[in-house]
Amino acid sequence: MKILGIDPGLRTTGFGVIHKQGNTLSYIASGTIKTPDGDLPSRLKVILASVGEVVKSYTPDCAAIEKVFVNVNPHSTLLLGQARGAAICALVAADLAVAEYTALQVKQAVAGHGRAQKAQVQEMVARLLKLPGLPGTDAADALGVAICHAHGGGVLSDLGALAPALARKGIRMRGGRLVG
Amino acid sequence: MKILGIDPGLRTTGFGVIHKQGNTLSYIASGTIKTPDGDLPSRLKVILASVGEVVKSYTPDCAAIEKVFVNVNPHSTLLLGQARGAAICALVAADLAVAEYTALQVKQAVAGHGRAQKAQVQEMVARLLKLPGLPGTDAADALGVAICHAHGGGVLSDLGALAPALARKGIRMRGGRLVG
Repeated sequence: MKILGIDPGLRTTGFGVIHKQGNTLSYIASGTIKTPDGDLPSRLKVILASVGEVVKSYTPDCAAIEKVFVNVNPHSTLLLGQARGAAICALVAADLAVAEYTALQVKQAVAGHGRAQKAQVQEMVARLLKLPGLPGTDAADALGVAICHAHGGGVLSDLGALAPALARKGIRMRGGRLVG
Repeated sequence: MKILGIDPGLRTTGFGVIHKQGNTLSYIASGTIKTPDGDLPSRLKVILASVGEVVKSYTPDCAAIEKVFVNVNPHSTLLLGQARGAAICALVAADLAVAEYTALQVKQAVAGHGRAQKAQVQEMVARLLKLPGLPGTDAADALGVAICHAHGGGVLSDLGALAPALARKGIRMRGGRLVG
């Protein structure tokens, strides 16, 4: 199964494609899409076309995209939302199923805990995929999203939703794992 | 010239198509696109496909879309941004030039001042386009965006930017017009 991961942004969108065979993950490709300065519609057009081009080139079986955090600046939040909308459009236009993961889920899947820094994500992604060097931060995040999906990131998400109920039973979660 | 106006939203996207011949505007079509409950990617897919369908059906020469305001709730802002991104994608995918107008510009173009209420926009749109009845609020807003573009909404925008300089020369703007 080929998984395409996307780390969306208006200026830079990271993408990463990995292959999952049983429990073995391998690297296929990664990179960044940059939009030139210009009006919003033309920038969204670049994201739509470029993500579409990635889909066409690597024919993934499914896609996963990072849930963006809400920025302190509402104007930036709005711009980021539109960029993410354009990336998702390129995926659904190709009839790909699109899973969504928070940065916390991605960090847990890649580094084992949600407090990992950018550099640690880059390092763990490189190690998990046996890369010869560190990927750029946006590409690393995108590969991280794909790894999260390969590891069944949805399970972590469900556990997260269950946390209050589990806590009532004296079971707590730490770093995506159930403890004590 | 056929102009497609869009009032974007995650739940409801309004569209309106008008024809401009010299100074005469006439109504061609309007309506609303509703997305069913579901995950975000599938809702964006509906917006992308449906706006694309409108473009295919009415073959507009250009498009205009309302600039959305920043919501008090950042999560809603993010969702609205993604919906607007999907609508813009459908337009740019069809190689349409996309103009953007604020709600203020649309109200000025339709009602002559920026404080117009929803009902007044509906009424003025119906009058300007000689409609037999009032359009729905979303369709009316979309038709308003198209009317704003037909009236050269960009001019109002430029005047707005010039306002401070004009004020220094003792010229003020009221309701989009220069006074005094």
